[in-house]
Amino acid sequence: MEELPQGPLAQGNKEHGTGRVVTSWERLSTRFVHRSSHFELYEDILQLPNGETMLYTRFESPPFSTVVPVTDEGEIVFVDNYRPPVGESLLELPGGMMDPGETPRQTALRELEEETGYRAKKLVLLGWFYPSPHISSHRGNLFMARNLVKGKARPEESEGLRTILLPVRDAYKKLRAGQIHQSTAMLGLFMAEPFMTELKPRLRA
Amino acid sequence: MEELPQGPLAQGNKEHGTGRVVTSWERLSTRFVHRSSHFELYEDILQLPNGETMLYTRFESPPFSTVVPVTDEGEIVFVDNYRPPVGESLLELPGGMMDPGETPRQTALRELEEETGYRAKKLVLLGWFYPSPHISSHRGNLFMARNLVKGKARPEESEGLRTILLPVRDAYKKLRAGQIHQSTAMLGLFMAEPFMTELKPRLRA
Repeated sequence: MEELPQGPLAQGNKEHGTGRVVTSWERLSTRFVHRSSHFELYEDILQLPNGETMLYTRFESPPFSTVVPVTDEGEIVFVDNYRPPVGESLLELPGGMMDPGETPRQTALRELEEETGYRAKKLVLLGWFYPSPHISSHRGNLFMARNLVKGKARPEESEGLRTILLPVRDAYKKLRAGQIHQSTAMLGLFMAEPFMTELKPRLRA
Repeated sequence: MEELPQGPLAQGNKEHGTGRVVTSWERLSTRFVHRSSHFELYEDILQLPNGETMLYTRFESPPFSTVVPVTDEGEIVFVDNYRPPVGESLLELPGGMMDPGETPRQTALRELEEETGYRAKKLVLLGWFYPSPHISSHRGNLFMARNLVKGKARPEESEGLRTILLPVRDAYKKLRAGQIHQSTAMLGLFMAEPFMTELKPRLRA
């Protein structure tokens, strides 16, 4: 299920459906613009295949790992997450950014335990994705966690988190009814769906 | 399938699973930091429920619309999109940001035609999502387009676009094999799957 991103920064000759031939894009220069707790902002000067140059702004932040944790009782462990930019709490899956030196898998296990208290004995990679490749190279990894052992959550104060358990079927009903709106949570549920043994009796019926 | 975001900027009393009671988050001030062609950057001073303050950076950009276009021949219309931040072309769905005064539906139809040349006689809203609510309030709308009429594409030079038609089944094979990596394209395919009449005979088999 895993595939690594292909190709160098400037891609080679490429036939173009509109009749133009794309030779390559080149990054001529990069200027650091701003640093925040979540990301860094850069301005690039890019040279287009037609020779023109353009200013291109992007932000960079570490990769993140998100987990679809399923308890032995057939419940998915969500977090109710207050998100300041949208001014509301969203139903999301546990996860967060990689700390220096961590693997995506280690991040997934650490964030799961920090945010919900659950430790997972089984962790399967579902896949990876670019959330916003038009403005950032940062990427997310999605895992499914099973064989969970309950411990004590210790979220950061600033996270405004609350753990919410939903039976697998109820979670997918919510998803299909358009009641889950954070894209990573939606993606995680869709990608984990074929592996949800709790849903199988229903599919067979 | 549509649901509007709920709640004001600072939400009211909320019971907290960790034993803390979240009363409200407040945005005390906002400072404009940077403007680019794609987004604007702001720094807020937020007051947490526990009274502490924190600096929070967010970017804002207009909502966007993305389309899952299906031809009468049972093919999905993708665009191969060069994305400078990741330095490669990605298989994506047509779409783009709302122009001033546009509705999400008008944006979907305009972007579909600009990027691929196809005009759609039927457009159904699949749902909406927040791609990155931890750093932005911007949202995406997903549509499914049918009854397509082929015209001439006229993408902007800077878009580096190429139209790619894939039979519905091949597209979902790619998705399940982890060969599509842009999250909006992945989400669009997952959300459109129940409405893919092309897949039904297979489900029945």
